[in-house]
Amino acid sequence: MSFKEEVEFLRSRLYKWEGDANTFHKEGPYIEVVTSPSNPDGTIRRAVVNRGGKLIHDLAYYWPQYTPITGAADHDIILFTFSKCTGHAGSRIGWAIVKDEQVASKMTKFIELSSIGVSKESQLRAAKILEALNDGLENDTRSDNFFEYGRRIMAERWEKLRKIVESSSKIFGLLEYPDEFCNFSKGITGSYPAFAWLESKKNEDIANLLGAHKMLTRTGTRFGTESKYVRISMMSRDEVFNLFLERLAAAKASNGNDH
Amino acid sequence: MSFKEEVEFLRSRLYKWEGDANTFHKEGPYIEVVTSPSNPDGTIRRAVVNRGGKLIHDLAYYWPQYTPITGAADHDIILFTFSKCTGHAGSRIGWAIVKDEQVASKMTKFIELSSIGVSKESQLRAAKILEALNDGLENDTRSDNFFEYGRRIMAERWEKLRKIVESSSKIFGLLEYPDEFCNFSKGITGSYPAFAWLESKKNEDIANLLGAHKMLTRTGTRFGTESKYVRISMMSRDEVFNLFLERLAAAKASNGNDH
Repeated sequence: MSFKEEVEFLRSRLYKWEGDANTFHKEGPYIEVVTSPSNPDGTIRRAVVNRGGKLIHDLAYYWPQYTPITGAADHDIILFTFSKCTGHAGSRIGWAIVKDEQVASKMTKFIELSSIGVSKESQLRAAKILEALNDGLENDTRSDNFFEYGRRIMAERWEKLRKIVESSSKIFGLLEYPDEFCNFSKGITGSYPAFAWLESKKNEDIANLLGAHKMLTRTGTRFGTESKYVRISMMSRDEVFNLFLERLAAAKASNGNDH
Repeated sequence: MSFKEEVEFLRSRLYKWEGDANTFHKEGPYIEVVTSPSNPDGTIRRAVVNRGGKLIHDLAYYWPQYTPITGAADHDIILFTFSKCTGHAGSRIGWAIVKDEQVASKMTKFIELSSIGVSKESQLRAAKILEALNDGLENDTRSDNFFEYGRRIMAERWEKLRKIVESSSKIFGLLEYPDEFCNFSKGITGSYPAFAWLESKKNEDIANLLGAHKMLTRTGTRFGTESKYVRISMMSRDEVFNLFLERLAAAKASNGNDH
């Protein structure tokens, strides 16, 4: 949603926000942003307009701890961020892979004008961390590298969450994600998105319902859909995540157990 | 000039660039940016339109090492940067003092949208450096604090530059800046701008002339004026600055000594 907010805030004469690509039917040039895995729901996305417009692929969450790496990302404009890769969101470091030299040069110019370039402290820190990450992969026994470790943590958390949700399947629902062959892990792996996209099976305002049990979530209406959905971070610290599970189980109990 | 470039790049429907405030005669709302001391020429500036528009005061260079601090800065919107205060431009840290809460909140929103906020590494480093700066001022003997030290270096450099320019007064010219009472130093001090604004007295393209003697400068046309002016950094390392003085003296000699 920050794409929408930014576009609407700047009010450029160069472009405007047209909303959901699925319902975009206008003629003429357009830019489609494809966020895959999607935020908030973690699903794999592909361009949907397909009328020759420009595509921006946001692969912020396309890392092995979240999703199987099913192939090389081969798009015209690909955005990445350090934030979701290692969790260093505060460093404000991202990068792009861009095929067209002119587009790349305009992007560089924009960053220069809007921020005079990226903080040197952040660049140094990111370089150091990426080096450590890379060293870890080179000395790799596969099972104990950074990404496999991350996936293990995420898989454990998702398993705990699914257990609670499945035991209350008339109250809560979660998406299922396909297991796929991951080229990074060289094996079949599951998807463990950074956010859970929880649904109220009773069509209730689920952010309100969870809020009553002291769980702060982001309502579906913030993502252009209904209030029967919420986005829940799966990335909090252990203590916070376990507290969330406890409170979710309590919310389930007080909303009627379906067993 | 980066204000102009940024405005023209973003092409917002909210505002557009109207050029030099001195020649702005349109009716209606306007925003005037007052950069004081001015970049490139180091002079003290005041608003010139004075028809009730909004003012943004950019005080990037309003520090004791560059200019006498003649009074408390009491404007509606004041921009500062860490960059010119201590030279940590790479940290990309700035701050603003803003009287209107709504304006401040819009500025915060803009930074959040355009950069998701400032790098944490930069914030930590800036906080540490400002703390050291402040400690230095508290244990102050006035003559050896950071700003007095900076002014001494700048004064020495300006003196050397002026000596060369004065010995070739038919070729080169520099602005004179008034000595004034500095509330920080509690005494009369001079102005030693971060840039020298050098003029060709023969109306030559001075950037070209200096370029022929291996001095890279920024031509006056980049600042909306004539090519008989150049902006020269006074902030380079000692080695580079001394080399510049040598080459300037050589350029003067080969362009005819007027003694």
